Amino acid sequence: MQTLTVSLPGRSYPVYIGRGILSRAGEMIRRHLGEVTVCVITDDHVAPLYLGKVIASLKEAGLKTASISLPHGEQTKSLDSLKFLYDFLCARHITRKDVILALGGGVIGDLAGLAAATWLRGIPLVQAPTSLLAQVDSSVGGKVAVDLPQGKNLVGAFHQPSLVLCDPDTLDTLPEEFWRDGMGEVVKYGCIADEALFALLEGAATGGREAVSRHMDEILLRCIAHKAGVVAQDELDTGWRMTLNFGHTLGHAIEACQHYDGLRHGEAVSIGMAAITRLTEAQGMTAPGTAQRLENLLHALHLPTAIPDIPFGDLLCAMSRDKKSAGNDLRLIALDRIGACRIITATPDFYRPLFQPEQTSGRAE
Amino acid sequence: MQTLTVSLPGRSYPVYIGRGILSRAGEMIRRHLGEVTVCVITDDHVAPLYLGKVIASLKEAGLKTASISLPHGEQTKSLDSLKFLYDFLCARHITRKDVILALGGGVIGDLAGLAAATWLRGIPLVQAPTSLLAQVDSSVGGKVAVDLPQGKNLVGAFHQPSLVLCDPDTLDTLPEEFWRDGMGEVVKYGCIADEALFALLEGAATGGREAVSRHMDEILLRCIAHKAGVVAQDELDTGWRMTLNFGHTLGHAIEACQHYDGLRHGEAVSIGMAAITRLTEAQGMTAPGTAQRLENLLHALHLPTAIPDIPFGDLLCAMSRDKKSAGNDLRLIALDRIGACRIITATPDFYRPLFQPEQTSGRAE
Repeated sequence: MQTLTVSLPGRSYPVYIGRGILSRAGEMIRRHLGEVTVCVITDDHVAPLYLGKVIASLKEAGLKTASISLPHGEQTKSLDSLKFLYDFLCARHITRKDVILALGGGVIGDLAGLAAATWLRGIPLVQAPTSLLAQVDSSVGGKVAVDLPQGKNLVGAFHQPSLVLCDPDTLDTLPEEFWRDGMGEVVKYGCIADEALFALLEGAATGGREAVSRHMDEILLRCIAHKAGVVAQDELDTGWRMTLNFGHTLGHAIEACQHYDGLRHGEAVSIGMAAITRLTEAQGMTAPGTAQRLENLLHALHLPTAIPDIPFGDLLCAMSRDKKSAGNDLRLIALDRIGACRIITATPDFYRPLFQPEQTSGRAE
Repeated sequence: MQTLTVSLPGRSYPVYIGRGILSRAGEMIRRHLGEVTVCVITDDHVAPLYLGKVIASLKEAGLKTASISLPHGEQTKSLDSLKFLYDFLCARHITRKDVILALGGGVIGDLAGLAAATWLRGIPLVQAPTSLLAQVDSSVGGKVAVDLPQGKNLVGAFHQPSLVLCDPDTLDTLPEEFWRDGMGEVVKYGCIADEALFALLEGAATGGREAVSRHMDEILLRCIAHKAGVVAQDELDTGWRMTLNFGHTLGHAIEACQHYDGLRHGEAVSIGMAAITRLTEAQGMTAPGTAQRLENLLHALHLPTAIPDIPFGDLLCAMSRDKKSAGNDLRLIALDRIGACRIITATPDFYRPLFQPEQTSGRAE
């Protein structure tokens, strides 16, 4: 088992990474949080696979439990689900001393996290991410949210977990599209901060998922360590943490325009990373050849890079609602080269060249 | 104009108290928060009285504005209203750089505050309280929330304002029941921490609202100064801040059992303060004569002290959902004497003697 720490003044917390750690959830929670009631929130994909194991572990540790399973999928990340959870927490008399355990992917982590952030003005949260995306990204750092029909993550909070339990064994059961989803974020870490990780992925990607999986412990450790460092430095996302948003402005806009029912998050981010890097390289901000190297890796991982057929005006409108916008300007992340990035300010029009007629062939590649 | 500061690490903020300060809202906001768009959230009682003045002041300072008026009353403090506000914020493209101004009483402050706490994971908030209750209590300290049908303030957050603008002139237009509502909380400060304030109220109360109003500047200053001090000491309400809850456990339970459609908050708190003080005095925890002195003042201010006709079981059930509960126990505030208090732990059964047959005459007095 590996342990990383997210260092925050007065609220540091450990991230435990280890195969089979879900079976030790009760022991870990009891050690860190005492004799609490644990309210497990999960979804109908994850429940049949892991809920029994987690509940057994909690009971074995002498903890009281409650559990609720929601429908899987992005649509669950809504105000309606949140209301449903509040009724559940109320019915189960969950107090400030108790704990919410988010067992699932990013949707469950974000939704259960926001419930924990706002129930009785905030109760402790344990993140037990079961998807690659949640393990490398959303379970660490305290960002919790639900979507509105108008955009992703528009309603949320910063609510750091008390504990993160990351069990790589859960990735074995991860459907292919969820795997790709997470790999989009893994590539992002390589791009913005870790050329060695990027090179590791380049080496393994041609061998398919199995070859990449052989390096999973190292991949998780590198990604989470980077995330933990950035969060410690800029918890509230007003500075350097923004670099984790590489590829996300266009990615989020694509997701919104497809009503969160088209490409998956990691796929949309993949397109966003490729798009902005083509643009910044063309403008001389990014080392020559970077865009091609990035697209090669994304393609090897079966991640898309072509912008789907959405009118530019619609994307523009969605981007203008981006949380990172400052007045009319967007703050975007540009690569200097693979492994290094910077924050730039641009108008949403920055993306227009990708939609000019002469770029059409580039879009469709 | 008087200035108090709520001292919090990295997030200290000023409370300005001054007659006519609403007409200077634009100038104050621009000075503290820069050239922002100000989204004013108010209700249909307050809007006709003060919204025009505030908007004029914001425009005069060169700030962009948006405003929305909601129905007045506790029922507005709901998840449905919150959803309605999110749609409004989205439609008006309110970004993280912009500001929500809560112009109204406690309901608006709590609701608009929770919208500010959660919109885009948190945007700046200015509190402009127009009721006595909001001025002495809810606008300072960062507690924001909405109610559920099952209980008051069950969903919320801690979100400190960037600025509080407290204009005593607004109290002149305050309807009688809102005045009493606030006086309940004013008496509370006297009870738990400020015997001089209590004595001032005793001296003025027999002269009615007009006599008390003549001391309003001093009353506001004393109450807010105490609140600011307690918040600075215990922002997240895990220790001494709890003393501000004197009378609130039973008070909240009464409000819940009446579906927030019976007694007003300050009236319910008045009953709660009288009830617990009768009990603690009977048990020797409180100096003899305190309960009578407290009830005399409450009666002089036309505040109730008799528990309404609600089955004890219902109150018990509502109290067990109290946010201050720790497992099965309640943490209650008991007076040592007027001006000094302590935190005690008790079961909800603690209140049972008030419901025994021999106490019936006491209840109905």
